Amino acid sequence: MTTVKTIGILTGGGDCPGLNAVIRAAVKTALRRGIRVWGVQNGFGGLVEDQMVELDDRSVSGILPRGGTILGTTNRDNPFAYAVEIDGKTQYQDMSAKALENLRSKGIEALIVIGGDGSLAIAAKFNALGLPVVGVPKTIDNDIPGTERTFGFDTAVSIAGEALDRLHTTAESHHRVMVLEVMGRYAGWIALHAGLAGGADCILIPEIPYRMESVLEKISRRRQVGKHFSLIVIAEGAKPENGEVTISRIVENSHEKIRLGGVGEKLAREVESSTGLESRCTVLGHVQRGGTPTAFDRVLCTRYGVAAAECLVEGVSGCMVALRQDRIIRLPIVDIAGRSRQIEPDDELVCAGRAIGICFGD
Amino acid sequence: MTTVKTIGILTGGGDCPGLNAVIRAAVKTALRRGIRVWGVQNGFGGLVEDQMVELDDRSVSGILPRGGTILGTTNRDNPFAYAVEIDGKTQYQDMSAKALENLRSKGIEALIVIGGDGSLAIAAKFNALGLPVVGVPKTIDNDIPGTERTFGFDTAVSIAGEALDRLHTTAESHHRVMVLEVMGRYAGWIALHAGLAGGADCILIPEIPYRMESVLEKISRRRQVGKHFSLIVIAEGAKPENGEVTISRIVENSHEKIRLGGVGEKLAREVESSTGLESRCTVLGHVQRGGTPTAFDRVLCTRYGVAAAECLVEGVSGCMVALRQDRIIRLPIVDIAGRSRQIEPDDELVCAGRAIGICFGD
Amino acid sequence: MTTVKTIGILTGGGDCPGLNAVIRAAVKTALRRGIRVWGVQNGFGGLVEDQMVELDDRSVSGILPRGGTILGTTNRDNPFAYAVEIDGKTQYQDMSAKALENLRSKGIEALIVIGGDGSLAIAAKFNALGLPVVGVPKTIDNDIPGTERTFGFDTAVSIAGEALDRLHTTAESHHRVMVLEVMGRYAGWIALHAGLAGGADCILIPEIPYRMESVLEKISRRRQVGKHFSLIVIAEGAKPENGEVTISRIVENSHEKIRLGGVGEKLAREVESSTGLESRCTVLGHVQRGGTPTAFDRVLCTRYGVAAAECLVEGVSGCMVALRQDRIIRLPIVDIAGRSRQIEPDDELVCAGRAIGICFGD
Amino acid sequence: MTTVKTIGILTGGGDCPGLNAVIRAAVKTALRRGIRVWGVQNGFGGLVEDQMVELDDRSVSGILPRGGTILGTTNRDNPFAYAVEIDGKTQYQDMSAKALENLRSKGIEALIVIGGDGSLAIAAKFNALGLPVVGVPKTIDNDIPGTERTFGFDTAVSIAGEALDRLHTTAESHHRVMVLEVMGRYAGWIALHAGLAGGADCILIPEIPYRMESVLEKISRRRQVGKHFSLIVIAEGAKPENGEVTISRIVENSHEKIRLGGVGEKLAREVESSTGLESRCTVLGHVQRGGTPTAFDRVLCTRYGVAAAECLVEGVSGCMVALRQDRIIRLPIVDIAGRSRQIEPDDELVCAGRAIGICFGD
Repeated sequence: MTTVKTIGILTGGGDCPGLNAVIRAAVKTALRRGIRVWGVQNGFGGLVEDQMVELDDRSVSGILPRGGTILGTTNRDNPFAYAVEIDGKTQYQDMSAKALENLRSKGIEALIVIGGDGSLAIAAKFNALGLPVVGVPKTIDNDIPGTERTFGFDTAVSIAGEALDRLHTTAESHHRVMVLEVMGRYAGWIALHAGLAGGADCILIPEIPYRMESVLEKISRRRQVGKHFSLIVIAEGAKPENGEVTISRIVENSHEKIRLGGVGEKLAREVESSTGLESRCTVLGHVQRGGTPTAFDRVLCTRYGVAAAECLVEGVSGCMVALRQDRIIRLPIVDIAGRSRQIEPDDELVCAGRAIGICFGD
Repeated sequence: MTTVKTIGILTGGGDCPGLNAVIRAAVKTALRRGIRVWGVQNGFGGLVEDQMVELDDRSVSGILPRGGTILGTTNRDNPFAYAVEIDGKTQYQDMSAKALENLRSKGIEALIVIGGDGSLAIAAKFNALGLPVVGVPKTIDNDIPGTERTFGFDTAVSIAGEALDRLHTTAESHHRVMVLEVMGRYAGWIALHAGLAGGADCILIPEIPYRMESVLEKISRRRQVGKHFSLIVIAEGAKPENGEVTISRIVENSHEKIRLGGVGEKLAREVESSTGLESRCTVLGHVQRGGTPTAFDRVLCTRYGVAAAECLVEGVSGCMVALRQDRIIRLPIVDIAGRSRQIEPDDELVCAGRAIGICFGD
Repeated sequence: MTTVKTIGILTGGGDCPGLNAVIRAAVKTALRRGIRVWGVQNGFGGLVEDQMVELDDRSVSGILPRGGTILGTTNRDNPFAYAVEIDGKTQYQDMSAKALENLRSKGIEALIVIGGDGSLAIAAKFNALGLPVVGVPKTIDNDIPGTERTFGFDTAVSIAGEALDRLHTTAESHHRVMVLEVMGRYAGWIALHAGLAGGADCILIPEIPYRMESVLEKISRRRQVGKHFSLIVIAEGAKPENGEVTISRIVENSHEKIRLGGVGEKLAREVESSTGLESRCTVLGHVQRGGTPTAFDRVLCTRYGVAAAECLVEGVSGCMVALRQDRIIRLPIVDIAGRSRQIEPDDELVCAGRAIGICFGD
Repeated sequence: MTTVKTIGILTGGGDCPGLNAVIRAAVKTALRRGIRVWGVQNGFGGLVEDQMVELDDRSVSGILPRGGTILGTTNRDNPFAYAVEIDGKTQYQDMSAKALENLRSKGIEALIVIGGDGSLAIAAKFNALGLPVVGVPKTIDNDIPGTERTFGFDTAVSIAGEALDRLHTTAESHHRVMVLEVMGRYAGWIALHAGLAGGADCILIPEIPYRMESVLEKISRRRQVGKHFSLIVIAEGAKPENGEVTISRIVENSHEKIRLGGVGEKLAREVESSTGLESRCTVLGHVQRGGTPTAFDRVLCTRYGVAAAECLVEGVSGCMVALRQDRIIRLPIVDIAGRSRQIEPDDELVCAGRAIGICFGD
């Protein structure tokens, strides 16, 4: 089979519940095959800066339930366009050769990259340069093509669903419209799943531009049958027809930069002024992407971590592990990089939502 | 298309998180199509005893997060062999004609049955008699063939996983072997998933007869590397090689019937006497199968409920809804009844477990 | 003893976890003493509008774990200055006589009012008019004098604490400053308790005006010992020395009213621009005040509900039930109305926080 | 003030959520006062065996939310009667001088002991020998006199309460009697609080011997009003009038030792045979005493840890920290050792329970 003796592992991009669970599974799998494992610290920056530490069984003991990543990470550094300070000015240089040299100096022959869209694209470039790389798809947004689930997504949905449960009782008792803004700039998977799980009346997602009148009509129909409250889930990237995305616009005002409320806040104000019902918005923010993963995600992460290490053991690289039909498969990493998976308007879950009367704003 | 105007819905068998979520989705879907819905109370017994109540939108309002079933249920009654008291003796009679008559008297033309193996078999019989029936697979055990997931399973795994998290810290601090016995008489899916999610060192399931020496050797190897504790998950139906299943044996002792501890308790005692390490067993029991469902299960239940109602709307019956490739499909109910899905010894999850060093006792 | 035969119960003001638990306990206690109970719907407005419904044991069955209030509520209506529409203009009239008449017409001789500061003040006025009233202190803010704990507070702290746990791992892995803005306009109890429970590095509360330099110095000292992240909890009413409270200021901008981010958002921006560390703010909002109560709150609510009903049974009124030394006591309602309980700068919890190195910004 | 320069800290006895939170607070408080801290590993055994390690800020970083104890512990070793192997026989010797010598050799002048009844008694003995000792009361049972709350108790109640929520929906849907057996051999505080929090119909505690007829009568009265289910919480030490405690009896049977079910299992069998209602028992076991503490417990632990360290800083010893009137106070350790706090039959919570119809079996 293969002759790989030493591998590296790194985590890139934003936080995502389950990073440590993937690391643990990959490291344990490799070590049991007699392969040495180095952890690259602080994402791709650590490759360039030579921040690596060898990992043993003890390094990954007890980390399964923990949020974050023991390797640390950043979501900035790209070795192919690396920010360096020259004469007080920031310039971007290709430091990939330095990165490869750092790996070589430790005998690291292959790399596992746990990351999202951007990190996987960098991984693909290194792979093209001859470094065997395997990717593990990481995003709470579930919008990486080729895989039925990305890890972290189930946890994010679970957290947003719990928030909806809490908002629901307040909405009902106090005759209010409660808006929950969840993550999802380009894809509305979290909003869609959390909305179904939390009994939302309206689900607004980037893929389906919404009309304010539809939302107001839904609220109005509910009042007619004696339900003086509504629950709305809105993805941060949802936008009205002919409107613009309003994620955290920064404007200049009274001598200070201010960050405007996002789409949820704006929607709540419009609903309140149109209906007279008290309306409140909650923005879950980073609470969705940190902390301990759900059991579902821990199992998925373990499977991904094992599968990634086994690829390298078998001498397979240039691929990403993915979930399909409840099985782990391997996909060419170049087929994925730079693409994203959005919700189709006739997605079965959207249709299910419509069947039970959920308004998607169209 | 179809001309069905009135349908019934019933829940059969033991409790399972998400029953109400299925009912809600099916009822809402039917009502929005102009179809009337009757709820059959207390399972199949309610068919015979004519315990039915019409459901409207208000009947299913607010039940999404609630455990149990608003219809009530039993896990005993079979209309085809119905217990009746005659001359002080219990006899079993075929009361299916009475059940059908009760349905007809209310104009109920078709039935949604949410149930496990046994309930689906009864449903298939009614379907064979000409009553259009659609089944929704219900078991926390995840062992119904044809579907990648049954609802309630994710919740059960989640609860067992949380219990393992709690036991883990005690085991570690106190140098103990902690055994968690989970549900699963014939299939070990809960044990397998919960064990992976909770970082178990040994996972013992009905499909893989275990040797005590393997378990002890695993514990011993851990001690050699300074880990003076172990976590073991055991399914209630797991059995030692050449041994017998020991689920809750009832024996006569000192003038009273006593229920013996199950397989977990027995295992803990054997581990303690062999290793000298304090060993404790926890039996999660019914806590696993009640209460509010996870977000994952709520979404799955909603999809199942919508799909079941839509079958009847489209004039399709004799089928069970199922999840495959993250899509809801329809399978002939007769193909499922009486069969169960067990874990294959080379299941990917078992292999993943072995790759990270989990002992399966073989 | 007393001769009271019929009592009423109402909930006033914003949502608070445990309202239903108080209602349940009071109703059950009264019914078992042979006293009839009416539920006043929609807060004090329901008194004026004659929206009342008799409650029996079934009315309160199963509501213990549920958020919200089965009685509904508003946080606007005051019978002593009740908004009425006259000739198209809103005028405020004293409708207390109407309210009393509505109570009399049903034979309601006494009232339990579950509410915060404002509702208790109205309750005191009714008591002064001769209607026996007992108050139950309700606020998630824990700032009602005379009681060691208000119900709902433990739940709010628990939710904020869980959010901190999630933010913590992201902060640590990603070298960030995470700010959590929690409720508390005038008193910082939630921030103080949640900050201690969640391992915050800075806790900023209304009672201790903060200096930005202190916060920055704390972050800087942490970096010096290799901790490149910090967690800050800030109450919505916290303010910088010589600064102004910045809760959700509304300003006119580019032809639309916009709601500015609150104190947390502002703090995060200042920290980021001063330190160069990525800083993010999460505003928990209404998630803190809805949903199922913690076990602690359910017990406290049950005690309060029982005690309130027993006051009326014993012919005692004009009082509020309170918790002191782990016992339920009775305090004159007039002693409480209009006063609030803030954190003393030398409060034991503040001192404990300082002892372990938490920065309070002074 | 004092001149103490170096202290030790140890944890004794069984697991309890919050041990690490106390350690963290005590260590941080001491370090900030310039005092060195040694952690004694594995409880009192570590004193004798000289297993100690110096702790710094990094040692206690991130441990606040974690269950267990970083120091490890046992619940066996007593330096005043220490098991030693002599000529193949176990003998018990007084090794306290050795323990004191080990402390002296590291310059440790005083000791914080976090433990229950037994550990505090040993601590008192060391204090009498001239070693300044401060105790922190530790038991999930809440039965240490002098303090309104022991840490870990709120977490245990919370876990038991969640289990009741889950069992409740199954009981209701399936017309069952569900029994939950919780910890509490001599005091029923967990059962009492969890029962109130989880809506139990019967609460059976060691302090109030129960009559089976009372329990059956309660179940029967519920059926008469259409409630075909009941929830019973029973403390492991509860016993029938004239009966015996039945905790996990071991009997000899068919050539193997078997552990009988405890009081809960026995009760469920009796209820089932008497009422014909299906009855099931769940024994929570060690799940109650491990894992992450609630926010309430984390705050309490932090206060206890700070207070304990401050005692030694101030030169005060021979005391235990305690909670009274929401303040931390100091009590002579000798007043506590060997005593326990049980529930009085007229305790306010018991009376509250009776007021809402809970049956205590008497």
